[in-house]
Amino acid sequence: MSKILVFGHQNPDTDAIGAAIAFAHLQKELGKDTEAVALGTPNEETQFALSHFELEAPRVIEQIEAGSEVMLVDHNEFQQSAEGIAEAAILAVVDHHRIANFETANPLYYRAEPVGCTSTIVLKLYREANVEIPAAIAGIMLSAIVSDTLLFKSPTCTEEDIAAAKELAAIANVDLEAYGLDMLKAGTNLTTKTAAELLDLDAKSFPMGGKSIRIGQVNTVDLNEVFSRQEELETAMKAENQAKGYDLYLLVVTDILNSNSELLVIGEPTSPVEAAFNVVLTANRAFLPGVVSRKKQVVPQLTESFNN
Amino acid sequence: MSKILVFGHQNPDTDAIGAAIAFAHLQKELGKDTEAVALGTPNEETQFALSHFELEAPRVIEQIEAGSEVMLVDHNEFQQSAEGIAEAAILAVVDHHRIANFETANPLYYRAEPVGCTSTIVLKLYREANVEIPAAIAGIMLSAIVSDTLLFKSPTCTEEDIAAAKELAAIANVDLEAYGLDMLKAGTNLTTKTAAELLDLDAKSFPMGGKSIRIGQVNTVDLNEVFSRQEELETAMKAENQAKGYDLYLLVVTDILNSNSELLVIGEPTSPVEAAFNVVLTANRAFLPGVVSRKKQVVPQLTESFNN
Repeated sequence: MSKILVFGHQNPDTDAIGAAIAFAHLQKELGKDTEAVALGTPNEETQFALSHFELEAPRVIEQIEAGSEVMLVDHNEFQQSAEGIAEAAILAVVDHHRIANFETANPLYYRAEPVGCTSTIVLKLYREANVEIPAAIAGIMLSAIVSDTLLFKSPTCTEEDIAAAKELAAIANVDLEAYGLDMLKAGTNLTTKTAAELLDLDAKSFPMGGKSIRIGQVNTVDLNEVFSRQEELETAMKAENQAKGYDLYLLVVTDILNSNSELLVIGEPTSPVEAAFNVVLTANRAFLPGVVSRKKQVVPQLTESFNN
Repeated sequence: MSKILVFGHQNPDTDAIGAAIAFAHLQKELGKDTEAVALGTPNEETQFALSHFELEAPRVIEQIEAGSEVMLVDHNEFQQSAEGIAEAAILAVVDHHRIANFETANPLYYRAEPVGCTSTIVLKLYREANVEIPAAIAGIMLSAIVSDTLLFKSPTCTEEDIAAAKELAAIANVDLEAYGLDMLKAGTNLTTKTAAELLDLDAKSFPMGGKSIRIGQVNTVDLNEVFSRQEELETAMKAENQAKGYDLYLLVVTDILNSNSELLVIGEPTSPVEAAFNVVLTANRAFLPGVVSRKKQVVPQLTESFNN
């Protein structure tokens, strides 16, 4: 019997990798033969966190064999998962997103809660199972919470996320604020990346109203720095739309210090985007004050607008 | 703001009604303004349990208004839910079935475990939240476990279900075996029912390989008693197929004392049914030794067969 693979979404962020490591370890302690893997290499923020806590990056896989046993963290939609997921046996899901484009033939363990980070739920699962959390794993879990909540500034952040991060920081023995800001900044070093790499840092696909929508997000401490490369980004977005058949590419550029975002939009139709956020696109851009969460402040608004 | 409606599937069984009552009460204790409702009147087994524990049957609703806040128990597939469910705001799901034909626009609380009964999971939620269970609610919960597991004989039954039923029996102050058998027998009084009523007792729809499949189940202590009405049942099944557009109607008649089932099949195509169970239908019938669980021993086998 091959190992049960535990993984997060494509273009993994710190929660996709951290929650996979943490949940795979918990399941191993509970007697399951699991391995944490990832659907891509860690981004710079995640690599900073892995290095800080002296953890290995999970092995990268791209597809899974039919009939393999898997456990998903931090996602459920098949188009965000591994190739072959529809033919896998999904034993468990731990997630904090909406549920869509997901189905199984058999009953399974599914634990979703509307909190800011999957790792917050994984911490509860450790507590419920009375399993101790190793310091390094506590470290990658708190990194995931800092990442998903932008150090507690995102509207997705709940009291539970804050309490979980504090509890984990005590186990990992780090200063939450200082470490958290260092880690977030490590993820905003965009200058060394090509436009295509930048788009692909954290992009997810969503079918909406019959259209295929791609939504990327990049964090920065300086919006101008990113938009100085607007032309290059637009060319890369057009190329992606053409190559992958996306109707529309939205890039959400998020200023993590001031908690705002600026949108760059390439493709058609754009009018549902303008309606969703009550903005007019100028030179393909629109400023979205207070918007930092794709999950809570972008995807539901767009979904509703595209379905009208 | 109207109340948050908590309900189980159409053609409610004892778990659909019991888990709705129990989860609505838990959520009320946690500060939510909930009301347990049902998508149909209780069957005789459920009515026996409600009367025994002096509980009112939940108010029956058929459809919900767009935008209503709801919590689902014991189901998730939209075609088994209330009319209008796709436009409702689903806040929570507690279930023990496969996940399919389900989606939300927003993150939600979803708790599924592969155990024999939703009420077993609801008991855990009471424990996790440190909320006391009133005796009558413990009674309807243990009735749900007895019903779903056929007094622990179904292959869906887990150690957790047995432990939960015992724990609840102590709170409700009943003799589990004696009460359980009385309750199951109360549900097998089929003689007073028309064929159409009998079909509708516990029937669910499943899309499979492009076909619309209806699967009904009735419990009995005497298979012959049910099949003495085969002609009448077949007429009613044909009428249902025609009226509702089902391609195929399967009636699973389950002998709860000997833990076997006999299948009655009307519609087309029947060859995937024969392949699924490795049987040949004779006079539209096939004996399925050891089969008592639709969820575990019928639906996955049929799904696979229809998808091949």
